[in-house]
Amino acid sequence: MADLHSWHAPVRDLLFAMEHMAGAGTLEGLPAFADFSMAFAASVLEEGGKFASGVLAPLNRNGDRHGAQLENGVVTTAPGFREAYGQFVHAGWNSIAADPAHGGQGQPLVLALALQELWQSACMSLGLCPLLTQGAIEALSAHGTPAQKATYLPKLITGEWTGTMNLTEPEAGSDVGALKTRAARAGDGTYRITGTKIFITWGEHDCAENIVHLVLARLPDAPPGTRGISLFLVPKFLVNEDGALGARNRLSAASLEHKLGIHGSPTCVMQFEEATGFLIGQENRGMACMFTMMNAARLNVGMQGVAIGERSLQQALAYAMERRQGKPFGLQHEMREMLPIVQHPDVRRMILTMRSRTEASRAICLATALAMDLARHHPDAAERGRQRAREELLTPIAKAWSTDGGFATASLGVQVHGGMGFVEETGAAQHLRDARILPIYEGTNGIQAIDLVTRKLALADGGALSQLMDEMKETAQQLGRTQALKQWQAPFAAALDGFAASARFLTEKLKEGHPGDALAGATPFLDLAGHMVGAHFLARGALAAESILSAGTGNQAFLSAKIVSAEFFITQLLPVAAAQASAIFSGADVLFRATPDALGPI
Amino acid sequence: MADLHSWHAPVRDLLFAMEHMAGAGTLEGLPAFADFSMAFAASVLEEGGKFASGVLAPLNRNGDRHGAQLENGVVTTAPGFREAYGQFVHAGWNSIAADPAHGGQGQPLVLALALQELWQSACMSLGLCPLLTQGAIEALSAHGTPAQKATYLPKLITGEWTGTMNLTEPEAGSDVGALKTRAARAGDGTYRITGTKIFITWGEHDCAENIVHLVLARLPDAPPGTRGISLFLVPKFLVNEDGALGARNRLSAASLEHKLGIHGSPTCVMQFEEATGFLIGQENRGMACMFTMMNAARLNVGMQGVAIGERSLQQALAYAMERRQGKPFGLQHEMREMLPIVQHPDVRRMILTMRSRTEASRAICLATALAMDLARHHPDAAERGRQRAREELLTPIAKAWSTDGGFATASLGVQVHGGMGFVEETGAAQHLRDARILPIYEGTNGIQAIDLVTRKLALADGGALSQLMDEMKETAQQLGRTQALKQWQAPFAAALDGFAASARFLTEKLKEGHPGDALAGATPFLDLAGHMVGAHFLARGALAAESILSAGTGNQAFLSAKIVSAEFFITQLLPVAAAQASAIFSGADVLFRATPDALGPI
Repeated sequence: MADLHSWHAPVRDLLFAMEHMAGAGTLEGLPAFADFSMAFAASVLEEGGKFASGVLAPLNRNGDRHGAQLENGVVTTAPGFREAYGQFVHAGWNSIAADPAHGGQGQPLVLALALQELWQSACMSLGLCPLLTQGAIEALSAHGTPAQKATYLPKLITGEWTGTMNLTEPEAGSDVGALKTRAARAGDGTYRITGTKIFITWGEHDCAENIVHLVLARLPDAPPGTRGISLFLVPKFLVNEDGALGARNRLSAASLEHKLGIHGSPTCVMQFEEATGFLIGQENRGMACMFTMMNAARLNVGMQGVAIGERSLQQALAYAMERRQGKPFGLQHEMREMLPIVQHPDVRRMILTMRSRTEASRAICLATALAMDLARHHPDAAERGRQRAREELLTPIAKAWSTDGGFATASLGVQVHGGMGFVEETGAAQHLRDARILPIYEGTNGIQAIDLVTRKLALADGGALSQLMDEMKETAQQLGRTQALKQWQAPFAAALDGFAASARFLTEKLKEGHPGDALAGATPFLDLAGHMVGAHFLARGALAAESILSAGTGNQAFLSAKIVSAEFFITQLLPVAAAQASAIFSGADVLFRATPDALGPI
Repeated sequence: MADLHSWHAPVRDLLFAMEHMAGAGTLEGLPAFADFSMAFAASVLEEGGKFASGVLAPLNRNGDRHGAQLENGVVTTAPGFREAYGQFVHAGWNSIAADPAHGGQGQPLVLALALQELWQSACMSLGLCPLLTQGAIEALSAHGTPAQKATYLPKLITGEWTGTMNLTEPEAGSDVGALKTRAARAGDGTYRITGTKIFITWGEHDCAENIVHLVLARLPDAPPGTRGISLFLVPKFLVNEDGALGARNRLSAASLEHKLGIHGSPTCVMQFEEATGFLIGQENRGMACMFTMMNAARLNVGMQGVAIGERSLQQALAYAMERRQGKPFGLQHEMREMLPIVQHPDVRRMILTMRSRTEASRAICLATALAMDLARHHPDAAERGRQRAREELLTPIAKAWSTDGGFATASLGVQVHGGMGFVEETGAAQHLRDARILPIYEGTNGIQAIDLVTRKLALADGGALSQLMDEMKETAQQLGRTQALKQWQAPFAAALDGFAASARFLTEKLKEGHPGDALAGATPFLDLAGHMVGAHFLARGALAAESILSAGTGNQAFLSAKIVSAEFFITQLLPVAAAQASAIFSGADVLFRATPDALGPI
């Protein structure tokens, strides 16, 4: 039997999604990315794929089995993690998209995100470490002082030091404004941070010589709620003026969580006891800095959903091509050889569901990263503004829809394996366990849906949404003009109508002062939006594939499979998602008609 | 904080579903159930609820943490399991629905199934033991010789001995006909059984003095495939003529599986080495006997889906009523007290999704059990035939749709808890892990869907389906005639049209010799069928609730909440399920257009 834990970097799929779905080719002409080309991206992804499959992927089981151990405040990661992380840093993978002014390679985020899929597919629990570091880099780059940048960015960019995000507290989860960690002015420009933070990913570990904690805390005279939160940099080891590590700061990991999945990732309860901290940005303006960290982190988490989906798909497909059970329908009583289960229609449906949803999520995530690149580096200011709005519109969709899909895909992966899927040694169950965190962390998917409805629909006076819808209408027309794909136009256009009507309904409810009716529809709307935007990108990919095939070029099997995925998604999954419009139009009334206790056993 | 692991037996909900959704009151007039009344059912469920919450529920964590241990062929179950099972037997819970001729209490299966929900909610891994025993009782009752019944049934019915189902082998899972375990005629009327069986639930344990294995095996001269399979009774200890236990039989547990969930249930690899076996039924007719066992087992597994859904719902609701995060929308910046999260629309949506789906599944399972009771005990032979057909039609829906729902509900339960849901100590994750087996065992849900489409739609020349659809049309009309519920008629009737058209399409494809096109739609059709039948029962319940409320009687909060669940399900979930018709009508073409290897990374 083939090694069912093996995984191959889907380099060709990533390149196709970057180029023909997200449209990353537009970066090639930009001054900021003089070194970038799709050919360069191909070679980088090829190398990244080798590193991910050769070095990281073999550690995935290890991390699950051994987890991380805490003893006397010291966390020891799973066997092989420390060495692999060292190789990751040494090979320069941490610095791909970082600012060259601080030692980064200055490549586009869309390429970094494509690589991110590879790291997260290979070993999600280890991949979380550099993912969090990237958040710290983003926050420092945007809001740090020149001195702070000079001190911390180079080491964070190489990955020699790692970063964390210390937001959550026992009484402050989704409601960040409720946090209680205190910051006192020390009088010398520094602060003393005291409090307990929970769910701190890679909060303590043995893979790097220093850990740079970004900690949200409240000054004594801060106003209540989110307007009174400040962001502090609190290093594990203080840094001397010459850049050498100095005294150990007064913070420690008090315990590790015993979790459903990502066992290899140390999830810490962190104690800060008068720890020395440095203000990032302005006092009481920490929420803005936090969103800088979180936008990048949310997109990366969305890509974790793609990654776990892709790994689950590959494992399920390999099993389904090898496992033989049953005979072709109608021939049960003859002595025909048993079929590989991938030849049974129901299994094929599971595989295509897994594949098309993974591809749609990948395209959404890459398109979001491309918008980030253009928002930062397009020469035209107006275009930068438009791209910024698109980035903000797509981010909650990328995070929530991709992670819901990653979990659903991992669950189908278990199902394809039958009884073997429930046995831990098979590995399919680990993907399911690991995937379950994704709809929760970096803002639950419910929070993403609320963000989409209450903040993002109205962005640029609704312009971000209407511009995207114009592009989707153009896609519908292109489908209608393309002989081989024109039967997709009707379901695509019907779903688009439902999407547009839903967005109008929610926007009007907010304007009319009925926010409850808008919030009630937030989750079904986000799911519909994910399907719609995903269908748009898959259709663009299929149009491109069709055009390449018509020209008689390209890899026929590969391109035809892209068209099959898109057709399956648009004709079979999209109409179901579009039917959620009825839930969206229902508003909040039925949800609140019963008292909470009447919903339980009484 | 309240004990979030606590669980309350939903006795009132069970009684409402039995009486007003499934219609179990019709049993009251039957001669076979002279002792039965809904009032009697209420008192039995009340007692069962005390036993389940007092004795079984506290063991659920234990089973998960300790699992079962195998040493030298002896399985030791988790602390407390042995004692609790003993109390279960002693209290007579195992014999509720069994034949009084062999010591059973002769109560209806619908009551036994309602109790089953309680056992499975309280502790699914322990609850599996009597669930399997029931399968053995069914098979022996239907196909055993008088001597076999006399020897084995009384002890199985009390639960002093337990039963197993030995079907699966490494190369024979969904494809039972591929099994290789051999049976040789010993010459004295007994057989010698040799082979390896896997995934044998409670195959070996320390809770009963004997274990009665029902084993599928193949005689030397058997025809190939499913027509050459025979069923054997293979006891762990042979039974002397006086009923005392004799020699240890040549079978043993070779290993235990390391599973994602239900750790407390020992899942064994069983080795039979020339073990003494006794033929059940006729040689080579084992498949029919197996289906007797499996029909009951499938329904019970469906009820496990309800049970895990109910437990997840209760835990999530308790958490959501206690956990405070966030303020009413639009008032974030004021110093208002934080809301319990159940007051946020998105959380309320999750709770109502969990609740309405659990209630719909419960009604389907109970209605299936009622059909079994009527198929066996209705005085009119023609009615028995109709009820038999209904039982067979509903069984795959009860099994698959309820277990898909149980898993989905457990996953929402994790989500309601946010980050705490991912921490094992919370308990929500255990429900998710436990629930994941349900769509797999006792015939995967894909197999159930194929059974529904290829065997059940055509039952009684389509009469089983058309009778059910007539009842659903009547429900639609009643909704239209009821002022308070008449706005439900349109979505209900629209979904019913889609359901009917889908069933016609699949039936025609089978008749026309295009089975692939029918099989391709099997899973979406089963999901649509589950929603449709579930909506039918919820609507019946709501009509009854409305009528009781109009009369000014009944518990208003309880009955109003039933109406809310039904409205949410029918107006928000049902239309989405109905949209799967487009997938059903798509047939197999798109599924098979790409070669399997083109669906992976190439």
